Amino acid sequence: RHQGMAKNTNMRWRLPLVCLLWEVAMIVLFGVFVRFGAEADAHWEEEKREMNLTSDMENDFYFRYPSFQDVHVMIFVGFGFLMTFLKRYGFGAVGFNFLLAAFGIQWALLMQGWFHSFKDGKILIGVENLINADFCVGSVCIAFGAILGKTSPIQLLVMTLFQVTLFSVNEYILLNLLHVKDAGGSMTIHTFGAYFGLTVTRVLYRPNLEQSKDKQGSVYHSDLFAMIGTLYLWMYWPSFNSAISDHGDAQHRSAINTYCSLAACVLTTMAFSSMLQKKGKLDMVHIQNATLAGGVAVGTSAEMMLTPYGSLIVGSISGIVSTVGYVYFTPFLESRLHIQDTCGIHNLHAMPGLIGGIVGAITAAAATEDVYGKEGFIKAFDFTGVYQTRTPSIQGGFQAAGIVVSLLMAFAGGAIVGGILKLPIWGDAAAENCFEDGVYWEVPEDEESDVYHMHNPDKPASP
Amino acid sequence: RHQGMAKNTNMRWRLPLVCLLWEVAMIVLFGVFVRFGAEADAHWEEEKREMNLTSDMENDFYFRYPSFQDVHVMIFVGFGFLMTFLKRYGFGAVGFNFLLAAFGIQWALLMQGWFHSFKDGKILIGVENLINADFCVGSVCIAFGAILGKTSPIQLLVMTLFQVTLFSVNEYILLNLLHVKDAGGSMTIHTFGAYFGLTVTRVLYRPNLEQSKDKQGSVYHSDLFAMIGTLYLWMYWPSFNSAISDHGDAQHRSAINTYCSLAACVLTTMAFSSMLQKKGKLDMVHIQNATLAGGVAVGTSAEMMLTPYGSLIVGSISGIVSTVGYVYFTPFLESRLHIQDTCGIHNLHAMPGLIGGIVGAITAAAATEDVYGKEGFIKAFDFTGVYQTRTPSIQGGFQAAGIVVSLLMAFAGGAIVGGILKLPIWGDAAAENCFEDGVYWEVPEDEESDVYHMHNPDKPASP
Amino acid sequence: RHQGMAKNTNMRWRLPLVCLLWEVAMIVLFGVFVRFGAEADAHWEEEKREMNLTSDMENDFYFRYPSFQDVHVMIFVGFGFLMTFLKRYGFGAVGFNFLLAAFGIQWALLMQGWFHSFKDGKILIGVENLINADFCVGSVCIAFGAILGKTSPIQLLVMTLFQVTLFSVNEYILLNLLHVKDAGGSMTIHTFGAYFGLTVTRVLYRPNLEQSKDKQGSVYHSDLFAMIGTLYLWMYWPSFNSAISDHGDAQHRSAINTYCSLAACVLTTMAFSSMLQKKGKLDMVHIQNATLAGGVAVGTSAEMMLTPYGSLIVGSISGIVSTVGYVYFTPFLESRLHIQDTCGIHNLHAMPGLIGGIVGAITAAAATEDVYGKEGFIKAFDFTGVYQTRTPSIQGGFQAAGIVVSLLMAFAGGAIVGGILKLPIWGDAAAENCFEDGVYWEVPEDEESDVYHMHNPDKPASP
Repeated sequence: RHQGMAKNTNMRWRLPLVCLLWEVAMIVLFGVFVRFGAEADAHWEEEKREMNLTSDMENDFYFRYPSFQDVHVMIFVGFGFLMTFLKRYGFGAVGFNFLLAAFGIQWALLMQGWFHSFKDGKILIGVENLINADFCVGSVCIAFGAILGKTSPIQLLVMTLFQVTLFSVNEYILLNLLHVKDAGGSMTIHTFGAYFGLTVTRVLYRPNLEQSKDKQGSVYHSDLFAMIGTLYLWMYWPSFNSAISDHGDAQHRSAINTYCSLAACVLTTMAFSSMLQKKGKLDMVHIQNATLAGGVAVGTSAEMMLTPYGSLIVGSISGIVSTVGYVYFTPFLESRLHIQDTCGIHNLHAMPGLIGGIVGAITAAAATEDVYGKEGFIKAFDFTGVYQTRTPSIQGGFQAAGIVVSLLMAFAGGAIVGGILKLPIWGDAAAENCFEDGVYWEVPEDEESDVYHMHNPDKPASP
Repeated sequence: RHQGMAKNTNMRWRLPLVCLLWEVAMIVLFGVFVRFGAEADAHWEEEKREMNLTSDMENDFYFRYPSFQDVHVMIFVGFGFLMTFLKRYGFGAVGFNFLLAAFGIQWALLMQGWFHSFKDGKILIGVENLINADFCVGSVCIAFGAILGKTSPIQLLVMTLFQVTLFSVNEYILLNLLHVKDAGGSMTIHTFGAYFGLTVTRVLYRPNLEQSKDKQGSVYHSDLFAMIGTLYLWMYWPSFNSAISDHGDAQHRSAINTYCSLAACVLTTMAFSSMLQKKGKLDMVHIQNATLAGGVAVGTSAEMMLTPYGSLIVGSISGIVSTVGYVYFTPFLESRLHIQDTCGIHNLHAMPGLIGGIVGAITAAAATEDVYGKEGFIKAFDFTGVYQTRTPSIQGGFQAAGIVVSLLMAFAGGAIVGGILKLPIWGDAAAENCFEDGVYWEVPEDEESDVYHMHNPDKPASP
Repeated sequence: RHQGMAKNTNMRWRLPLVCLLWEVAMIVLFGVFVRFGAEADAHWEEEKREMNLTSDMENDFYFRYPSFQDVHVMIFVGFGFLMTFLKRYGFGAVGFNFLLAAFGIQWALLMQGWFHSFKDGKILIGVENLINADFCVGSVCIAFGAILGKTSPIQLLVMTLFQVTLFSVNEYILLNLLHVKDAGGSMTIHTFGAYFGLTVTRVLYRPNLEQSKDKQGSVYHSDLFAMIGTLYLWMYWPSFNSAISDHGDAQHRSAINTYCSLAACVLTTMAFSSMLQKKGKLDMVHIQNATLAGGVAVGTSAEMMLTPYGSLIVGSISGIVSTVGYVYFTPFLESRLHIQDTCGIHNLHAMPGLIGGIVGAITAAAATEDVYGKEGFIKAFDFTGVYQTRTPSIQGGFQAAGIVVSLLMAFAGGAIVGGILKLPIWGDAAAENCFEDGVYWEVPEDEESDVYHMHNPDKPASP
């Protein structure tokens, strides 16, 4: 084997250098810019009096912290374990996801802070910033899914640095310039993250990847580990889509819509998974992934008056689209377009993200004062200040523009970042060593014979 | 082997047809009936003003959403992973549980909605409905435990359809007609669900099940996967029993009583597990299951003034009863009564559920104005309107009647549904293929030799 | 083999006796002492009126219950699964942790109740008591990490009994006598728990432990199970450090500081893990453990105005210290000081706990009215009543004294309890059977050949 010659994957100085330098940069930037927001600052007692708040319960912490923790679980356990399905890449899946997300949330607190929480030269943070940082990193976790098993940890950190930056710019354009609603991030998180990742993996195309084809599958228990990730994403998605919605009915409604959409999505996924296999057997790849498309596809509209049956329709369609994608589109993308998409993020995030953006645009365009109530209408779309003359149909148009902007940012950004990641200095593995933890991790020797010996004292140990 | 001849387990058209038709039915029924309740509707701003609410915090969402998410985890991860203990049925355990629960919550929203949230021709839903739908499905997950590994996914969907319907009728009789208290569902969820499932498995008795005896056990890692389920059920059970209790002290008290009961239950389970094995070794089956009996057994009384020491007593007894059940009753039920109970739900849900109903009846009958306070007494048992003359002892009588009704509904319903499931059209597997994922799932080939080869580049790959 | 002769590990009568007698004692003591606090009692309606509370939301349950559930997950799943990394001690890790914690929380409710919630002869409990009981047990879980695999369940219960007692005394000295702040327990939980456990394992030194060296490692999937524990500890640590802080800004701030510290800690851990291995490969032991040091190290100061960048600094340092500890200190402690520390709690809890105590003392000493606001300053350090003349620098001194007291209690208590555990009556295993579940658990036979046979009907079963 010539892998040692072909590629230098030794991380010993490169990875520590990047981690430590960047962490020092974070400390300096946090030192200069980041402070506690009013609700987390010890001056809160005075603030409360000034704002005439009678109860500590009015602190945003109590409105959002439970949702924040659910989102946090989705990012670290949800995405982390979902990607452990590969038979020999569990350490990399959960470990690199941990690394890039831990860096990403720090950088996102800064980037999003400059755009959204900047006051008198300081970024003032509270629980909503933590949620938004997790959201931003979610888009990186999605992109990671496309390149899973084929990149070094340094490449992932570099990608995170750039993607968080671009995410924040895109988010600013959508939310502030276009005044678009996207509480669950169908456009900002899923569409952007997925097409960004797909573009990156296209640029990093590996023609000889079939050399590690035997490692691209799962084993029995790795599929069960992945189901932990799936279920935590599925269960907590109502929290994801409602986490930063307005207090009160909007949070409540987002959770209900998402719950309904996800439930429907499971049934259509199971149906098509069985239908598209000639013996009618269910495929764990579909169950692990396509069942989640319903959460993606109501990301924009969940806080709107989508209604429970509307959610069932959206969830049903997205489950079908996603499952069909795994069966037909993924092989096509790989063979014809040279897009090697390890986790099938095109099916789980890209297409459902587009559906989500479109459904959001339609739902916004169809909004009426009758359905929302006069006050509810203004509050739901924040039609105040310079936006008070905006009509639903114009809002729908801007929502649609948000999809286009997200796509353009993803393609352009992905192409540039992919180009940077292609430089031969980051220590990625040779094609034959992809999807293999042993490259970057100390892996224990699984000497099963020993294990047997242990609790069968009668059997002699075979060397 | 003649399995192919004996049974047609191909799901290709049957399963998709059922899933898709039923999902379309859900969409139509939701379209006709289901709307957002006042607290999730965009008119909430006006509602708030009318009800003189000064804070969005008064939205029921904030009282119940954290508990809802915990319950959600119990249904999907808790029950799903608890049943992964079988060595080759992990996909079916977690996957079919996912399928039936996702369908069941939709149907439960409708059934329970018609009974409890129907107003002017519409079902108005909010977070409490989501919790109740999860609760209802919990009873199906329990019944699934009895027939785990022996039924096709279509059978499970058919059972879910009928069981959710019967659950809702039984629940309506208990809560509305008998005016019984059962916040944690000892009667409505556990007693009903368990005896329903036991009756179904009795009707579906398989005389040749010993042909798949070798697959009915666990392997080392499948027992650890099951412990994930156990712990999430155990940890979140205080949320389960308090999720739909009255705001304030009742939710608070339910959580404390359940916490205490479960803690005591662990000790008596460990004690009897060790005592009943001749070498004194602990049995994972007991630890995975009997430790949870304490949560079941305070389901009815947790929101009452059971007191912490009362909870310890109930938890201690239920742990003993449950462990003894696994050692002595389960083999008896199988050999004498032909009840094949894969997960031992008789020990975890049926007997503790009965204990829970009885403890609830006694606790209600023993209630005094002295212990509850005048207002607290009325509020705790909702002795208002036509029930304002009800005395504690009469309430105790009605509570006891609730147990009897639940049992009758379970036996009758289970017999009928079991009969339906016995029809030879649902695609269940032959006895020799029970407890085997390969029948309904594409299962990866676990070629360990390959895995070794991968991180031991020295060893040659054996084909 | 002579293990049967050397040691009697049969638990059949000893373990049940201890469990049952102690549970009866708990019931009696709870019956005499424990009652519901005002917010969990049915008299709450009257209480509300007396206290002029307008909303049920003011019940402490809603301020703390979500955090409580997160802490609960950390104790049972977090610690339990973190310790499943050993290849053949997963049942013991998660099962014994379950046992000792379930007993410990009951005893802690009593011990802490007598010290802190005793009124008119009764211990009045609410959600804060549940959190504190979980905290107290956390210190026992930490100590368990040092002796993991080398002790019988009875020894663990005996240790729990004594450690909970000593914990409560130490906590009383720190919080009440020294008036020290330690919301996240850097001193009371981590420093005390870790040095207690290290002292116990020193006393129980096993000179022949290398006889079971082959079982002290991990296998591939056991490392993934352990990552479940790691991630739940990591994700929920912001809840841990904020769970019992004052309502409002203090809880909010604690969560933010902990979030920041933990994020930084991951990067420095990865950096040093790679740097200290000659091929630059990452070590799962470090990722599983040292990434958590950041949560320990801000335990005391998280609720203070540590600031986000301060948290990044503390987290960065603690990740480095902890990783270096695993590489250099642990072997040194074992070979020179005869401290056999199975999980490396010296690196994860002891050193970061000391850092946490010191950072807390410095942060307190540096507090000014300018930074906290006049009211915030008094509220943050509770400078009321007899403490109203205390200055920040004096507070810093008392904080430092708290570290010393915790260390002394840990060493003295650990020495005594270690001596008790050394008595030859508790049924611990011989050195050659350490780290082996088969001693105390019925372990399934993992006959892989059977498993293959099952889903490969073509292959004949090899016996």
